[in-house]
Amino acid sequence: MVGKIVIVGGGAAGVSAALWARKVDRKVEIVVVNRENYPEYSRCGLPYVISKVIPDPSNLIEHPSSWYSKFLRIELKLGRVVIDGDPDKKILEIKNLRNGKVEKEQYDKLVIATGSSPSVPPIPGVDKNGVFTLKTIEDAVKIREAAEKSKNAVIVGAGMIGLEVAEALHSLGLKITVVELLPQILPTVLDADFARIVQNRMEKDGVTVLTGKRVEEILGNGKVRGVIVEGEEIPADLVVVSTGVKPETELAQKLGIELGKTGGIKTNEHMETKVEDVYAAGDCVETKYLVTGEPILAAMGTVAVRQGKVAGINAAGGTAIYRGTVLTRVTKLFGLEIASVGLTAQQAKNRGIKPIIGTVRGKTKPEYFPNSKEIHVKILVNPEDERVIGSQVIGENSVATKVDIVSLVLMKNLTVDDLLSLETAYAPPISPVWDPLIVAADAVVRKLKKKK
Amino acid sequence: MVGKIVIVGGGAAGVSAALWARKVDRKVEIVVVNRENYPEYSRCGLPYVISKVIPDPSNLIEHPSSWYSKFLRIELKLGRVVIDGDPDKKILEIKNLRNGKVEKEQYDKLVIATGSSPSVPPIPGVDKNGVFTLKTIEDAVKIREAAEKSKNAVIVGAGMIGLEVAEALHSLGLKITVVELLPQILPTVLDADFARIVQNRMEKDGVTVLTGKRVEEILGNGKVRGVIVEGEEIPADLVVVSTGVKPETELAQKLGIELGKTGGIKTNEHMETKVEDVYAAGDCVETKYLVTGEPILAAMGTVAVRQGKVAGINAAGGTAIYRGTVLTRVTKLFGLEIASVGLTAQQAKNRGIKPIIGTVRGKTKPEYFPNSKEIHVKILVNPEDERVIGSQVIGENSVATKVDIVSLVLMKNLTVDDLLSLETAYAPPISPVWDPLIVAADAVVRKLKKKK
Repeated sequence: MVGKIVIVGGGAAGVSAALWARKVDRKVEIVVVNRENYPEYSRCGLPYVISKVIPDPSNLIEHPSSWYSKFLRIELKLGRVVIDGDPDKKILEIKNLRNGKVEKEQYDKLVIATGSSPSVPPIPGVDKNGVFTLKTIEDAVKIREAAEKSKNAVIVGAGMIGLEVAEALHSLGLKITVVELLPQILPTVLDADFARIVQNRMEKDGVTVLTGKRVEEILGNGKVRGVIVEGEEIPADLVVVSTGVKPETELAQKLGIELGKTGGIKTNEHMETKVEDVYAAGDCVETKYLVTGEPILAAMGTVAVRQGKVAGINAAGGTAIYRGTVLTRVTKLFGLEIASVGLTAQQAKNRGIKPIIGTVRGKTKPEYFPNSKEIHVKILVNPEDERVIGSQVIGENSVATKVDIVSLVLMKNLTVDDLLSLETAYAPPISPVWDPLIVAADAVVRKLKKKK
Repeated sequence: MVGKIVIVGGGAAGVSAALWARKVDRKVEIVVVNRENYPEYSRCGLPYVISKVIPDPSNLIEHPSSWYSKFLRIELKLGRVVIDGDPDKKILEIKNLRNGKVEKEQYDKLVIATGSSPSVPPIPGVDKNGVFTLKTIEDAVKIREAAEKSKNAVIVGAGMIGLEVAEALHSLGLKITVVELLPQILPTVLDADFARIVQNRMEKDGVTVLTGKRVEEILGNGKVRGVIVEGEEIPADLVVVSTGVKPETELAQKLGIELGKTGGIKTNEHMETKVEDVYAAGDCVETKYLVTGEPILAAMGTVAVRQGKVAGINAAGGTAIYRGTVLTRVTKLFGLEIASVGLTAQQAKNRGIKPIIGTVRGKTKPEYFPNSKEIHVKILVNPEDERVIGSQVIGENSVATKVDIVSLVLMKNLTVDDLLSLETAYAPPISPVWDPLIVAADAVVRKLKKKK
């Protein structure tokens, strides 16, 4: 019998832990300590607050505090941070951010779900007024307000979130420049040829994309005025820095919890840390990348809720396992759905794999059917064992679940032949008789046969 | 070296065989004998010819005859049927349907892809003018022409094709009555609760659906006037009978090829019949149902093209295997996408399995996101081995690829835990963080735990 579970962090991982702990044990006391003043909300929905697709940011909040307290007897301690703790005595020190008061909280089981914070490069001028990162509801509201008074925005970093912000600001009528240090946009999720499809669409919509370029300085007298890229000034009254996140492990370190070489908290498959009765979940945790076996920082909502679920179940005395991630990702940008799972070609090469690649430009429906849309599908296969190691899909619709199929292929270590044999559902108003995914698998199989 | 491959049947299976045979062997002579006067067309597209979604039926024809002859050196012999043959001498007798002339054709390898024909129940009056089945382009055009002069249509049989025809005629403004002998619509693909969702939608749109009722007679003096259902007359100037298909095995029987107990041609995994150098593929073939191991008649386009591909590759001297089907099916009816794979609950019970069922009414996107649509997902699991044995999905979109995921689960004999662990792609404009498929799997897992 567990008496009290304390969860530090009220984001996706923390609240998942709380909800599933409650499902396992109806009686255990559950406390969630959250730095922010709101109950859990959809962080991935923040770009749509900026664009006003979600006009009222409070719509992102899934349930009010009263729902947690009344229906689930989960106590939310909002606007508070854990500043220290003693894992032997199982006591935490919690500081109320409003009044500075510190209280103590005992626990039987602890779940650390402290998340991540924006990783901001040391660009001169990055602390100027008008330079933002996007992590919280307040950030989104501030960016949205700043956008109303702005004409030109520069986005530093062309990852998924950076481009989601670029799209949001573009939809508000700002002139957008995206600056990416690496030679292509979406460098961690797409190969260069697929990134080019997205970049072409962005450029067609009037966005300036600068790849392989560094923001050298952010200009302005207090308030941002522009950025310097390769010696040239680009005007900007609004700059959003979106260059990744780093795990928040300060508390874990204070509690003497071991970190992995990625800088994230080390856990086993039960999401237990090396310290007894302490679990961890979400962006602060180092995860196993199932495609390669290596430890990684996933920093993804899907991973956070799954890890939170497992931590919560186990903390409450149940049994659950989280095996790892295959990095299944999707976003929608400038009318295109863009999804990716597993390794890109470059990532494969960096690991000594020379992938066999099947690339297909197909259709979402039979050619003759109205509203059949173009879809780009790519499959990467390791020629050594013919296992699928990655996939990328871009199209106007029907994209996300295609990579979900490959996600299952990766999680179960299946081969390209397994994918080729897949019987996909076919009906003219919905899908072609040969799904582009199968056509891509067929292209790989034929290349493999030629090699033999 | 194979000299000549003759393929009997120019539908999906036959033409797939021809195309893949050509990929394997650039030189082999390939002849396709087809009863119809057109090169291969999308049979599944015929309901959309009736509804005029495809205004010109010739758009269903994928390639003109000249494409086959010029680019692939595949000879199409249209408007001809094989009336007899000698598998020892490897000679066929081919009759030209236009002039009645009979010619002989030698082959080295033969592929039988004679398809299926409508299975029409012996209803008195079924041969009257105004009663149709839907199998060919001519059928679709005739039904469309008849619809122009009709006010009331009765559809006999509420399978996928029957309902597709019902929708097509409804969209043309006819008053529709669907009569189904079994107690629910879509009886082979959905459980009663999910069939009810579709029936409600149809009824809301003004379609009359009569289940558990028999058409006793078709009335009319030459031209159809109505049908008798349980003693009552339903007016009808147009009747479409859609009560399934039967395999066309006349030629196979003449050649002494063994049929299975389903009445379809028996083949091995190479799509070879028991007669040397004779392959078979498509609706005329008996297939292995991978969920149960039993032989079935699939009569599906997806199965036909896959079998045709395998038959063609092997006939041309390559190597390929077709393992069987899991009956992955989808259609779109009255604004709903309806998909199914594997066993329904009733089909499971008939086989001595008491499935554990997880049913979820979820959303296609997070609740807060605009245009999030309702989606119904069901998973069926065998409690003995926790293997997934079936799934049904109904919603306005995002349905087909969800069953594709379960299709892979069934084909690889995976368990509900494998499905539960799946990392699905999440982004607010596209999908919820917990895919309804995962929620349904979770519901099953919790029921299984309670049983233990």
